[in-house]
Amino acid sequence: MSYRLGELAELVCGEVVGDPNYLIHSLSTLEAASSGQLSFLANPKYANKLNSTKAGAVLVKDAFLATNLDNAIVVGSPYLALATLTKKFEGDVSTFSTSDLNTVSKEAVIADSAVIGEGCVIEPNVVVGEHAVIKNNCYLGAGTVVSRNVSIGEGTHTYPNVTFYHGVKVGKHCIIHSGVVIGSDGFGFAPSKEGWVKFHQLGSVIIKDNVEIGANTTIDRGALENTEIGHGVKIDNQVQIAHNVVIGDNSAIAGCAAVAGSTSIGKNCTIAGGVGIIGHLTITDNVHVTAMTLVSKSILKSGSYSSGTGVDSTDKWRRSAARFRRIDDMAKQISELEKQVKKLLTEG
Amino acid sequence: MSYRLGELAELVCGEVVGDPNYLIHSLSTLEAASSGQLSFLANPKYANKLNSTKAGAVLVKDAFLATNLDNAIVVGSPYLALATLTKKFEGDVSTFSTSDLNTVSKEAVIADSAVIGEGCVIEPNVVVGEHAVIKNNCYLGAGTVVSRNVSIGEGTHTYPNVTFYHGVKVGKHCIIHSGVVIGSDGFGFAPSKEGWVKFHQLGSVIIKDNVEIGANTTIDRGALENTEIGHGVKIDNQVQIAHNVVIGDNSAIAGCAAVAGSTSIGKNCTIAGGVGIIGHLTITDNVHVTAMTLVSKSILKSGSYSSGTGVDSTDKWRRSAARFRRIDDMAKQISELEKQVKKLLTEG
Amino acid sequence: MSYRLGELAELVCGEVVGDPNYLIHSLSTLEAASSGQLSFLANPKYANKLNSTKAGAVLVKDAFLATNLDNAIVVGSPYLALATLTKKFEGDVSTFSTSDLNTVSKEAVIADSAVIGEGCVIEPNVVVGEHAVIKNNCYLGAGTVVSRNVSIGEGTHTYPNVTFYHGVKVGKHCIIHSGVVIGSDGFGFAPSKEGWVKFHQLGSVIIKDNVEIGANTTIDRGALENTEIGHGVKIDNQVQIAHNVVIGDNSAIAGCAAVAGSTSIGKNCTIAGGVGIIGHLTITDNVHVTAMTLVSKSILKSGSYSSGTGVDSTDKWRRSAARFRRIDDMAKQISELEKQVKKLLTEG
Repeated sequence: MSYRLGELAELVCGEVVGDPNYLIHSLSTLEAASSGQLSFLANPKYANKLNSTKAGAVLVKDAFLATNLDNAIVVGSPYLALATLTKKFEGDVSTFSTSDLNTVSKEAVIADSAVIGEGCVIEPNVVVGEHAVIKNNCYLGAGTVVSRNVSIGEGTHTYPNVTFYHGVKVGKHCIIHSGVVIGSDGFGFAPSKEGWVKFHQLGSVIIKDNVEIGANTTIDRGALENTEIGHGVKIDNQVQIAHNVVIGDNSAIAGCAAVAGSTSIGKNCTIAGGVGIIGHLTITDNVHVTAMTLVSKSILKSGSYSSGTGVDSTDKWRRSAARFRRIDDMAKQISELEKQVKKLLTEG
Repeated sequence: MSYRLGELAELVCGEVVGDPNYLIHSLSTLEAASSGQLSFLANPKYANKLNSTKAGAVLVKDAFLATNLDNAIVVGSPYLALATLTKKFEGDVSTFSTSDLNTVSKEAVIADSAVIGEGCVIEPNVVVGEHAVIKNNCYLGAGTVVSRNVSIGEGTHTYPNVTFYHGVKVGKHCIIHSGVVIGSDGFGFAPSKEGWVKFHQLGSVIIKDNVEIGANTTIDRGALENTEIGHGVKIDNQVQIAHNVVIGDNSAIAGCAAVAGSTSIGKNCTIAGGVGIIGHLTITDNVHVTAMTLVSKSILKSGSYSSGTGVDSTDKWRRSAARFRRIDDMAKQISELEKQVKKLLTEG
Repeated sequence: MSYRLGELAELVCGEVVGDPNYLIHSLSTLEAASSGQLSFLANPKYANKLNSTKAGAVLVKDAFLATNLDNAIVVGSPYLALATLTKKFEGDVSTFSTSDLNTVSKEAVIADSAVIGEGCVIEPNVVVGEHAVIKNNCYLGAGTVVSRNVSIGEGTHTYPNVTFYHGVKVGKHCIIHSGVVIGSDGFGFAPSKEGWVKFHQLGSVIIKDNVEIGANTTIDRGALENTEIGHGVKIDNQVQIAHNVVIGDNSAIAGCAAVAGSTSIGKNCTIAGGVGIIGHLTITDNVHVTAMTLVSKSILKSGSYSSGTGVDSTDKWRRSAARFRRIDDMAKQISELEKQVKKLLTEG
């Protein structure tokens, strides 16, 4: 499937430099691209790559960058334009069969009281429990379990082996990757003389529209109230969202991050990979947290936050870490020195 | 389903202040509660919330806190009491059907030699291998795989899509959440000229009674001996327990923590989220480790342990991290200064 | 099943001290071993354990260590020898049945256009999509989903509930543990005024031969090009490999590590547990990274690398962490002191 360069330019409100009838059959990086492929230059810092690329055409931000290219699309944000065009070049992502549109596999197990919308694909070995409601045009990948009373909004796609616990609510046009678990019990126990007493988790999980959730991510149900994931939130693989967490619209959370119980994250936040955020905190809007930071107090001012230390050779790091254990003593030594030097200076 | 306040008080050995016939239909937080709901005040620090709550009744620790409330239950530990009562207010947590008690789905695949106890629910697409033994009143959620020779104790509940490898033993009244894998191979390889040689993992996993294991947690089988999880241990989501780890009774491990091979953790420990404990260590009883700490040596004394640095604005943190790389030099500068100042003071 | 000591010695090119006809029925540690068991001494530091062991025979490196033992095998690397011998003592690891060799379960759902090699075991509830190719002697554990156009090389074993997305390619003799997800979408989104625009992931995942992948690990498909895992790579549980990562031959990655997008790791690297490596970096060959290190810049020189701080009592750590926030001030105080002392020394 090929597209005319002019047609692609139109889709991204860009301007063709060169031949609008040039045919593009796929997308590629500047390094790997060849004839018939469209590439992109997101960062003008790498403009020298344009000299050597064999790409048939390139998405660029400024017209002058297109000077030495046979074909280009000039567009405000080449990366956004490329992302937009990926949709055109994606093949069929169905799991079992390319022809299973509008079909419910006879190998799926669906409770009589479940309601399945029109245009749904339900693959082999899917289980849908009592009173679950699957709206129109949903896709449920093989082995997915939709428990009782779950509702899934229009056009939502789950890949294989996803698990929804009872009563969870998922919005429209969400994408949920394999191994995701939504609605498992929050980690709540009260200490007693006889050991831990389980706090049965009575809340649920509410996921709004256009949310994407990465492979093997877990989102626990609330203890008394619900766990909530806002509109347009994007969550990467192996993220852990604990009970009663609230995540604001359009925030993005990268792989292996974890948010502990009852913490609330604002809108448009970007949480990098491996970040941990402890429980009962408030993170305001537009906060960025860098990789593997531990957030141990609320963040009430937008901006970028970090913790940890930089990577070093293990030998050198070992000395630094040993000194860190004595940094309080070092500070006291400095104070003492300051007193003594002050005295010397005064006496002098 | 509603309960009389007096009835609930009795269950938690509490004392009613107000009307023992007041009907409670559900539980809620002080902020969200309304008429007919029972709430709780766990921390006297927030006693002012009692003035504004609309809760029909509140669990409180001290009778004087009940003064301005229409109805209350006075009880030693309101949080423990609340946890105890959650059991009464939890609906049916079955996956597929509320009426599948005592039933084995015809969509389950069960080996002829497997032994299934009385009162078990086995949902669609469960697979039970040869010679597996499922004791009475177990619940196996849809898509769960119980491999050959596994034994599962009375009353244990697994949610959908759990995997037990061959020979694993699970105790009574455990709760195992979706995506959990128990008995996968420990990570053992010997280096050789031809690359890594696999150390086939010949041990198994033994899980005692009343253990809860969170979603997508993994517990590896032992290399030669077994991996062991003690009585009443509670493990959160996405925890990794490596081969030959031993966890003592009633310890609790929060989300995304990881315990490396052959480490032994004592009783009544609390390991916070994201903690890493390296291999071949001994952690004694009653140890608490704070979030995202790396434990790199044995802990032989009870108490609380930490590592890492506090969160800061990225700009300020970057300066601190740069200084950390030179902290050994700083310490040497301090020593040199001390010598010089001592000399100056002596000479003076 | 027992083996003569001489037979085992031959398998590992070792030399018997004692009775070559002594029968070994299993393997064990020095502490736990009893008569009829073969144990090992990997580290000569623990040679005193040889005095008390009840092992029937021991793998040792030096002949003199065998002096007081009834039976021993002297071999260059006792640990490598033991690893080699584990293969002999491993029982059947099949999930459902020990007699299902060469069988495709009638409870598996296999597309007509899929090609299944000879000698394959396909367990109940496996789903194999259109045009997938499963080469000879593969084992697909119960509940595994092999999507359209996937190819799996000869002799590869997947445990239950693994998910392969469409088009993924897996080599020969790989072992893939339960809950693994291969080929899920990389985390790619372009910011726009209307929120995040998905960068559909058009690449795939290529896994070479002899790779082992631990339980619940996730490996994302590439954005434009492929994610690649080299020959003989060993990956532990709950590891996250992002899109377009390339991992060189024979590297090993321990539990809960994460490698962000487009990072390339060399050959023979060992990445410890909980390590995070940010995106777009290059890690050269033979690099070791210690547990929970954050690698935030490329590593172009072989060696061992670390970050973080050592574990301490929480009280003492809290003071250290507070000082760390002011370490830049401390450094400035030291500079100022140096100036003043220099002045005093000069004046004196």
